[in-house]
Amino acid sequence: MAVCIGSPYTLGQSQAHLSSGRLGERITWTQADPLKFLESQPESAKYDVAVLAHCIWYFSSPELIIATLRLLSTRVHRICIAEWSLSSSAFNASTHVLAVLTQAALECRRPGVQSNVRTVVSPTSIKAMAAKVGLVVQREYFITPGEGVLDGRWEVMAVMDREFSDRINELVEDGGEKSVVLAMKDAVEASLKQVGGLTEVRSMDVWCAVLTLPKEAFPVLIPND
Amino acid sequence: MAVCIGSPYTLGQSQAHLSSGRLGERITWTQADPLKFLESQPESAKYDVAVLAHCIWYFSSPELIIATLRLLSTRVHRICIAEWSLSSSAFNASTHVLAVLTQAALECRRPGVQSNVRTVVSPTSIKAMAAKVGLVVQREYFITPGEGVLDGRWEVMAVMDREFSDRINELVEDGGEKSVVLAMKDAVEASLKQVGGLTEVRSMDVWCAVLTLPKEAFPVLIPND
Repeated sequence: MAVCIGSPYTLGQSQAHLSSGRLGERITWTQADPLKFLESQPESAKYDVAVLAHCIWYFSSPELIIATLRLLSTRVHRICIAEWSLSSSAFNASTHVLAVLTQAALECRRPGVQSNVRTVVSPTSIKAMAAKVGLVVQREYFITPGEGVLDGRWEVMAVMDREFSDRINELVEDGGEKSVVLAMKDAVEASLKQVGGLTEVRSMDVWCAVLTLPKEAFPVLIPND
Repeated sequence: MAVCIGSPYTLGQSQAHLSSGRLGERITWTQADPLKFLESQPESAKYDVAVLAHCIWYFSSPELIIATLRLLSTRVHRICIAEWSLSSSAFNASTHVLAVLTQAALECRRPGVQSNVRTVVSPTSIKAMAAKVGLVVQREYFITPGEGVLDGRWEVMAVMDREFSDRINELVEDGGEKSVVLAMKDAVEASLKQVGGLTEVRSMDVWCAVLTLPKEAFPVLIPND
């Protein structure tokens, strides 16, 4: 069973909206592992743009992110990335930052993890990975999400869930390491109180970037930030 | 060589101030490991109050904190604790919270560590440890430190130091775990930018508590919060 949540729209709703629009007939939706999909295509298959929209934290390791960027760089002219920035411009979004770091601190000990935060990477780290495969940042900017974007609340709820505490005790054996993850969880709880409860939690800023190989360094038309 | 820093006063300045006061003749300063000191005293030696002032994070393990609380509970009538709360009531103190959690996430992998954050524990966690040895919380409250308390800045500086990044690469072998500590460090850097730089960083709130064994549950006279 798969539960599809999303706010203000789910992924399915967004796809249906796009497919019903005037470009709908030109869109094909493919649900697949990105690296396997690219490898299954002939090397001659080139694409204008690859968009990595809030998906990088789902990758199972930093190495897999680098491998995907490397293969993408040979097949697409431009890679557009939107990912949580680990940066908040408001006090009540800092709870979201703490919550994802806390999840990441626990989940990095779980091989084959299925959570929302499997490999947490900052914009700085993604740029370092991109540089490793020769990609250049053409443009980058930050967006503060609207109040309808509820990811901040969801990630905080995941940490406050009783099951999360159980998993800390189950997965972290070393006393010192367990102490750190517990302290992080308690810091999320304290932050939640300080901002005035779950309904006050906002989502952290989003980092957006356009990457190309140097030979593709043409002017990129995107909105001013 | 020992470098003694502190703001607005160093430990040495505070001790000199107390010793020169009207109670000075009744004060003896002893610099010793708390557990070893207590063990060196006869069991009949009792004390009115033990004050643990911002020292718990220097303990080398959660087990040592519990052992110290256990022995203290048999020798003193009242244990007073002041410790960083991992909670900030202002946006520009959340950088301090992130910085100490980041240090803790790295330092828990270093046996014999000499940093300021050796065993990070929240008020919730300290209360759980106290309960394990039968201690009861008589009273607890939070204090927001004045601007002259610079610990927030110092801990952020420690994370931003080049040496800190070198130690991440040296100490954390697993790629996933390294990714988490690097992300935390980058989150500190992003928070530092958001609050407007180092001079704007404030120190997180301090948690104060009075603990006794149940038989000592007499009214405690401390200022109202």
